[in-house]
Amino acid sequence: MADNVINFTRGVPPVDVFPTQDLIRCTDVALRRDPSVLLQYGQPSGYQPLREWLANRYDVGSEQVFVGNGSLEVFSFIAQTMMQPGDRAFLESPVYDRAITLLNRAEVDVVGIPLEEDGVNIQILKTELKRGAPALMYVVADFQNPMGTTMSLEKRKHLAALAEEYDFWIVEDGPYRPLRYWGQDVPALLSIAPDRVLHMSSFSKVLAPGLRIGYVVGPASAIATITQWAVDSYIGPVLPTQGMVNQYCREGLLDRNIERLKEMYKPRLQTTISALEKHVPQCQWTQPEGGFFIGITLPEGSGIEHLVEQGKQIGLKLADGRAFFPHQEDGNQFLRIPFCSVTPSDIEEGIRRLATIL
Amino acid sequence: MADNVINFTRGVPPVDVFPTQDLIRCTDVALRRDPSVLLQYGQPSGYQPLREWLANRYDVGSEQVFVGNGSLEVFSFIAQTMMQPGDRAFLESPVYDRAITLLNRAEVDVVGIPLEEDGVNIQILKTELKRGAPALMYVVADFQNPMGTTMSLEKRKHLAALAEEYDFWIVEDGPYRPLRYWGQDVPALLSIAPDRVLHMSSFSKVLAPGLRIGYVVGPASAIATITQWAVDSYIGPVLPTQGMVNQYCREGLLDRNIERLKEMYKPRLQTTISALEKHVPQCQWTQPEGGFFIGITLPEGSGIEHLVEQGKQIGLKLADGRAFFPHQEDGNQFLRIPFCSVTPSDIEEGIRRLATIL
Repeated sequence: MADNVINFTRGVPPVDVFPTQDLIRCTDVALRRDPSVLLQYGQPSGYQPLREWLANRYDVGSEQVFVGNGSLEVFSFIAQTMMQPGDRAFLESPVYDRAITLLNRAEVDVVGIPLEEDGVNIQILKTELKRGAPALMYVVADFQNPMGTTMSLEKRKHLAALAEEYDFWIVEDGPYRPLRYWGQDVPALLSIAPDRVLHMSSFSKVLAPGLRIGYVVGPASAIATITQWAVDSYIGPVLPTQGMVNQYCREGLLDRNIERLKEMYKPRLQTTISALEKHVPQCQWTQPEGGFFIGITLPEGSGIEHLVEQGKQIGLKLADGRAFFPHQEDGNQFLRIPFCSVTPSDIEEGIRRLATIL
Repeated sequence: MADNVINFTRGVPPVDVFPTQDLIRCTDVALRRDPSVLLQYGQPSGYQPLREWLANRYDVGSEQVFVGNGSLEVFSFIAQTMMQPGDRAFLESPVYDRAITLLNRAEVDVVGIPLEEDGVNIQILKTELKRGAPALMYVVADFQNPMGTTMSLEKRKHLAALAEEYDFWIVEDGPYRPLRYWGQDVPALLSIAPDRVLHMSSFSKVLAPGLRIGYVVGPASAIATITQWAVDSYIGPVLPTQGMVNQYCREGLLDRNIERLKEMYKPRLQTTISALEKHVPQCQWTQPEGGFFIGITLPEGSGIEHLVEQGKQIGLKLADGRAFFPHQEDGNQFLRIPFCSVTPSDIEEGIRRLATIL
């Protein structure tokens, strides 16, 4: 058993990056200035000044922004308002495991479209569309969870055209989009098809997850529908934390924080790639240019279930890749490595340990 | 048109009661002490120190406490885990209007049991039980919304025995319970039937609604089921505000705040009652001993819809009482007066105006 356990399971930020002092000060400023709004009922679509700040950032009107208690719940509200039981819902395969859970709970027909390095396989997507259009398709277009891949501009345009042709919503989940470490930004699906896209994001990866502030940007009519569902679910969102984050953003601190995070995370991705090349060249891996994850395909003959068990013996915690696939058996050779919360030396050592059990 | 509009529609606290300075200071203390928990993912059943403080207050284990983002959403989680579409759900008639909305959305058969001054009509409850037991019965046993009435100990025992006999959950919503202005506490249903009761409450009426901190106390197995549903809905609740409130409670400030609120609200209820006696003796009203509301039955021949319209002409905002009834037409002569957010002089003037349109 190794001295220290290295944890490659959690897609979370390291705790030492949270700007606690600034957040305390911003709470003070916000609550002093606006206590009768932040402590009272109201603001069902989110704290209005924060909606306006986000609207400005996305170059839309504030009636196109809904801010709730974390983006997973925002997706839950979308799923409950935009789909009926029995509808089809498409997503990438593999994909964020909680999205699969949520869609299964909504009693819809969940269809995974195989993901390639530049986005979903368009041919298979078209075949599935001919079988029946979905109510929505959920994609993580930038630095995908769990693969780390980014959808090409060509495929974004293709997907947008298909959404128009077959009349379905694209739910573009973009929490990692601001965390690009190299290469060029690709336009968001939201900018390509603003009438067809509900763009979700959150402050979990660029500030702190415990705030649970997620949001969706989309057509005003869809935002109104989501808001009514939210009111009937919880009256309004938690407000003091939205006041805190509004102050933080308006002081210009968010962009500075994102730069700081990129400086910390970029070498962790570089270390991951070089350690993979050095220790496990028999594997294949994706080519992320940002985000939290790199997706690894194990060599023929390896099984992730067995690997997870072996890892435990040598102080290496691995996640069972099958959870990220709508059809779990498709993930039998898949390993997700989240690199942001692990130090470079632990990344190096963790992948060295991985090599010993492959 | 009167100079100032008097608003008798909103069951909210007045904004000037929020202890803003203390809440700012408590945020500072909490975030300095525990940033790596309050700003990170985790704590799916609520911030553990707050769960423990509440567990101690209710004399249960912390595994019997779930803290979420407002008690309406806690009820939504209960409704989604404890009922199936097509089940029956009982509630008092009249009752908190958002509870009706939420149960209707869950596609259950909503059955209202007429409410009397000392709780629901037991005979009618028994008749409905013989037609089919519900999955749950929702009651506001203390200072009911919208009636202001409190269920007698005898009826609580009767209801608890029926829940045992017919095997259903009692959801006891108790946000007003700590706000008793005179008279004696009646034991909570939770203490009478701890295996049958899910006791909900919140910090909205005793501290500040914008915090959206609601909770449920009940059997550990039910709390575990609710937690799993919550995790799949939002991963975890908003944490910095729970840290803030935990600090506030542990400094002993909550009980002091409740005393302060009672000192402010008690004369408002007294003024309401004396103004009703003076100006509208032709009406009937309930006999609240606490809480936010008094329920008024208009004289024969009055209709609430017409009264709401007439009120607008004389600077008096009234709520349409029909919204509080599962069968809306039952509320045609019902008026709810929320007295906490209105000053005594405005209460007096508002009821004087009411007399002029009756």
